[in-house]
Amino acid sequence: MTSETVDSAAPTGFTLRPMNEAMIELSVNAAARREADHPRSAVAAIAKPLTLESGSILAPLRIAYQTYGVLNADRSNAVLVCHALTADQHAANIHPLTGKPGWWSTMIGPGLPIDTNRFFVICSNVVGGCMGTTGPASTDPATGEPYGLNLPMVTIGDMVDAQAALIDHLGIPDLFCVAGGSMGGMQVLQWASSHPGRVFSALPIATAAKHSAQNIAFDEVGRQAITADPDWRGGRYLLEGAIPRKGLAVARMAAHITYLSEPALQRKFGRNLQDRDARSFGFDADFQIESYLRHQGASFVERFDANSYLYVTRAMDYFDLAANHGGSLANAFRDTKTRFCVVSFTSDWLFPTEGSRQIVHALNAAAANVSFVEIATDKGHDAFLLDVPELIATTKGFIDSAAKVRGLPEA
Amino acid sequence: MTSETVDSAAPTGFTLRPMNEAMIELSVNAAARREADHPRSAVAAIAKPLTLESGSILAPLRIAYQTYGVLNADRSNAVLVCHALTADQHAANIHPLTGKPGWWSTMIGPGLPIDTNRFFVICSNVVGGCMGTTGPASTDPATGEPYGLNLPMVTIGDMVDAQAALIDHLGIPDLFCVAGGSMGGMQVLQWASSHPGRVFSALPIATAAKHSAQNIAFDEVGRQAITADPDWRGGRYLLEGAIPRKGLAVARMAAHITYLSEPALQRKFGRNLQDRDARSFGFDADFQIESYLRHQGASFVERFDANSYLYVTRAMDYFDLAANHGGSLANAFRDTKTRFCVVSFTSDWLFPTEGSRQIVHALNAAAANVSFVEIATDKGHDAFLLDVPELIATTKGFIDSAAKVRGLPEA
Repeated sequence: MTSETVDSAAPTGFTLRPMNEAMIELSVNAAARREADHPRSAVAAIAKPLTLESGSILAPLRIAYQTYGVLNADRSNAVLVCHALTADQHAANIHPLTGKPGWWSTMIGPGLPIDTNRFFVICSNVVGGCMGTTGPASTDPATGEPYGLNLPMVTIGDMVDAQAALIDHLGIPDLFCVAGGSMGGMQVLQWASSHPGRVFSALPIATAAKHSAQNIAFDEVGRQAITADPDWRGGRYLLEGAIPRKGLAVARMAAHITYLSEPALQRKFGRNLQDRDARSFGFDADFQIESYLRHQGASFVERFDANSYLYVTRAMDYFDLAANHGGSLANAFRDTKTRFCVVSFTSDWLFPTEGSRQIVHALNAAAANVSFVEIATDKGHDAFLLDVPELIATTKGFIDSAAKVRGLPEA
Repeated sequence: MTSETVDSAAPTGFTLRPMNEAMIELSVNAAARREADHPRSAVAAIAKPLTLESGSILAPLRIAYQTYGVLNADRSNAVLVCHALTADQHAANIHPLTGKPGWWSTMIGPGLPIDTNRFFVICSNVVGGCMGTTGPASTDPATGEPYGLNLPMVTIGDMVDAQAALIDHLGIPDLFCVAGGSMGGMQVLQWASSHPGRVFSALPIATAAKHSAQNIAFDEVGRQAITADPDWRGGRYLLEGAIPRKGLAVARMAAHITYLSEPALQRKFGRNLQDRDARSFGFDADFQIESYLRHQGASFVERFDANSYLYVTRAMDYFDLAANHGGSLANAFRDTKTRFCVVSFTSDWLFPTEGSRQIVHALNAAAANVSFVEIATDKGHDAFLLDVPELIATTKGFIDSAAKVRGLPEA
């Protein structure tokens, strides 16, 4: 715990944190991953214990986060970006483990929709995650060992409440915008519902107000793949010096298929062979799609913790915003003053447009200010992470318009 | 090898084989599964070695099969039914391992589309399978041990050539009809292409002339799940007294999702909880869909061999009928006299209608006699196995009409 930066006071002006080579070259080892391995993310030690949706208490709570841009004097320009299942707080900087650009570097930066010349952008690792925020790899104060499966279950609501504690910690009264895709979009909806007075605008992308049976099914396959790996060791692999690499890789491969559309797979890979002129009549990765999936699985295990995968998928499964409001999604947004922009993609079969329509219908029933855009693309669910011109244009238009209403100066 | 029935002579009249309790109560153990465990299927010992598409030679070749109905005097009423990935020869009888009705008992029987009062129906286990036909669990004559991964790779073309050898063995000059769904449909197309003079009518259902990138991707996930299981033992698990149960179960779970449509999952399971009133905030199977998938995985490993899963999925991946005909699917059916009925289902996302359309376009280009029906159902790919009235009506109409042209007497 010596090498990390822990904020103890609420700051008034942040600047973009520069990355350096040392961060990129951090050694990669999922089993050894600890909070201390991520010294470059700020880590907030939240003093108040977090009461979880299950009734359990989580303490201590530490939240790792990145910021970009500068908080203005009246603290009115903060944008919270919420990450998806396997992403983290490194939204717009080079990732310290992979050396790749942040997962939303198409959206966050000077002149981009979430303009770091205008806004103070915060992205924190979710509770249950594995990049510095309290999660199953964190130390259980009751035992002095990694939590493993002793971490209480966390929900999307718990993730949002932890983010709210971080915002409090940073001395930010309310957020100009909360934005995210997929599980990040779930958090956006939850924010608007749980903390309506603190969200001026909300941008849920490629998401739904509840996880579908098919989504739960794919999550369960991933969990079964992980727990089937003997190196998972009943969740105690960190203590026992093992890593369930194979199980986690299979989980990632199965999930990865769901992020892409069939037409995009056809266009990108088709039946193309990988580095060979003919089929091998064997079980090598003859096809490019096989080689690609194997690579996705293998690289994922170098940056993600298997138990976190269990917890965070479970949080998504449990998400059902209407169920917590008497079965009515409109009730979840009753009297909301938040301005919404809901975005879906035509070829997203994991979070189809129908789920976004249900959100829009509920917002309409709640008389909310909502716009809805279904973007035509063949890029599937992953479109929210990609440089899709209509996505950039739509979100920029929405955010600029909301900023004007909020009275924020132009860039 | 003492308890099985091996045909050595071509018969002229078969009768429906009755099932008995002993067959249903056969002990279930995938590891111990051997050809000798399936005494009730007839097994044809094919004298001529089978030259595989890879160039390898497979010998000896044994083919396990079931028959229903009676072959007529001029041997003109034979229907070959081709099974899908995880099915077998038990198309219309109680399955000896599961005790459940045959996988196409909705289609095969007195008064049904494949009418056992009129037709002599043959269904054989595919080469590479695990229910009595030569496959990876069979004895390799070179070693006296189970083949495991020493079995040469087999293709859809090889499966069909083995079936042709069986038909020869049975003394049947040509088939009135070849019918099947999914991988069974691939075999139907291959039959019409490889043995055009021996197929009077062809009924490919919920299939495609090539496996898509997405299909290969899902197959690869299944194979990775199996080979990740330490009990797979590099494919030598039968020799070492192990069974890769967990890996095979994960493979089945992932595949099973692809057999169902999202709307059907929603209708059947939705977010319903399994035997509980509230979420457990844990990793039990809280949701019915989880419980259902776990059951599918667990029951599958009791009846299917893991190495067969590798081989048969690979055969599907390799299927690309046009590639073997200069890239032109129409060439695969050039000068065909076969009458075709192509059937797809609106909610089948594993073998979407588009794949059937490509078949139909190629058949049109080859000036073939073809009808095409896309059936509206939310039952997904599995619809071909279910009692879908429009499927029954369509196939019955096609077969009855073809029988009339063939000059077969009415029932």
